[in-house]
Amino acid sequence: MTGVFITFEGIEGVGKTTQVQKAYKLLSAKHPGNVITTREPGGTPTGETVRNVILQDGADMIDGITEMLLVFAARRQHIQDVIQPSLDAGRIILCDRFTDATFAYQGGGRGVDEQLIARLQDMVQGALRPDLTLLLDAAPDVGIARIRKRSAPDRFEAETMNFFRRVRHKYLELASRHPERIHVIDAAREADKIAAEIRSLLEAKGLC
Amino acid sequence: MTGVFITFEGIEGVGKTTQVQKAYKLLSAKHPGNVITTREPGGTPTGETVRNVILQDGADMIDGITEMLLVFAARRQHIQDVIQPSLDAGRIILCDRFTDATFAYQGGGRGVDEQLIARLQDMVQGALRPDLTLLLDAAPDVGIARIRKRSAPDRFEAETMNFFRRVRHKYLELASRHPERIHVIDAAREADKIAAEIRSLLEAKGLC
Repeated sequence: MTGVFITFEGIEGVGKTTQVQKAYKLLSAKHPGNVITTREPGGTPTGETVRNVILQDGADMIDGITEMLLVFAARRQHIQDVIQPSLDAGRIILCDRFTDATFAYQGGGRGVDEQLIARLQDMVQGALRPDLTLLLDAAPDVGIARIRKRSAPDRFEAETMNFFRRVRHKYLELASRHPERIHVIDAAREADKIAAEIRSLLEAKGLC
Repeated sequence: MTGVFITFEGIEGVGKTTQVQKAYKLLSAKHPGNVITTREPGGTPTGETVRNVILQDGADMIDGITEMLLVFAARRQHIQDVIQPSLDAGRIILCDRFTDATFAYQGGGRGVDEQLIARLQDMVQGALRPDLTLLLDAAPDVGIARIRKRSAPDRFEAETMNFFRRVRHKYLELASRHPERIHVIDAAREADKIAAEIRSLLEAKGLC
């Protein structure tokens, strides 16, 4: 049996981490030992180092194409070491961000040519795409307000509200382009209501 | 005036670092304050971090495509922050390895599809290519013997002799494909003889 690859997407502060954890508990009850959570950029030792390079307030301002190449490098290793072997073993993978985030952040946010991103997607992933993507959507001011209470902003979080508006816009554009895969979920609501909607979607897919 | 972009290529132990230093002294005498040396992967804070990821004996074995993407990410930043501004300022750049090394190591050595490398070259560099490339060529057993006396081998140096034979073969193939740019220099000789040949080449280009 082939596994199921589920990704969680959305801008900072929409509650992705919380929802990944809730979905993990829910699915693990039905499929004990057969559900994993992971994240991008990261997910492998190489990927976590790359994550630190990208998120740090660097001495040099990282160019958009540099950033995209680092993200895809980490992704390649993540696919080879974690995602593909887990799919082959029939597991359910809950991944906090994947390639939609590259289109949204580096493409929509930073203006990297979308065709370059699509070309790297094919190069790095072959035919691999998520089976289901949960896009937690909220206006940037809702998400950013949550973050400000949480911790010091990293480089991405410190970028302007306009940046996050462009990212959100690109996410919604991707959702309308791939309605069969990407489900838009109103993330301005309470966490339990969001979790209930995700539960319904997972039930509809026969996963819980 | 536009600067001059000179790269030094070759497998481990052929004496690139020594020759870069000798060329730097020679050219600096004629163009004081107008010559810089740099290296790849590296050359910027982001690039040096990436260099460490690539060269470390990692917990995970780095996939060939991951490695190529990391190399090009570091290269992009290097071009933006160092190479292009130096060329615009009319400087002479002596760079220890550039994209020929990606074709040789990741392509020839690790079997990454050369068309993928060429596509990333265009994506990351646009039309930028070295003006002159000095390929220090020697059989792997000559170079590797020198290294063994020098320090503990890193991950690349620890790979098999067959790997280095494939890398050398690809370097020579690149040289025969780009004879106007790449000069093959017999690096099995003494450092001073190699330096004298490089001096002649630089003189022929009107640089010293």
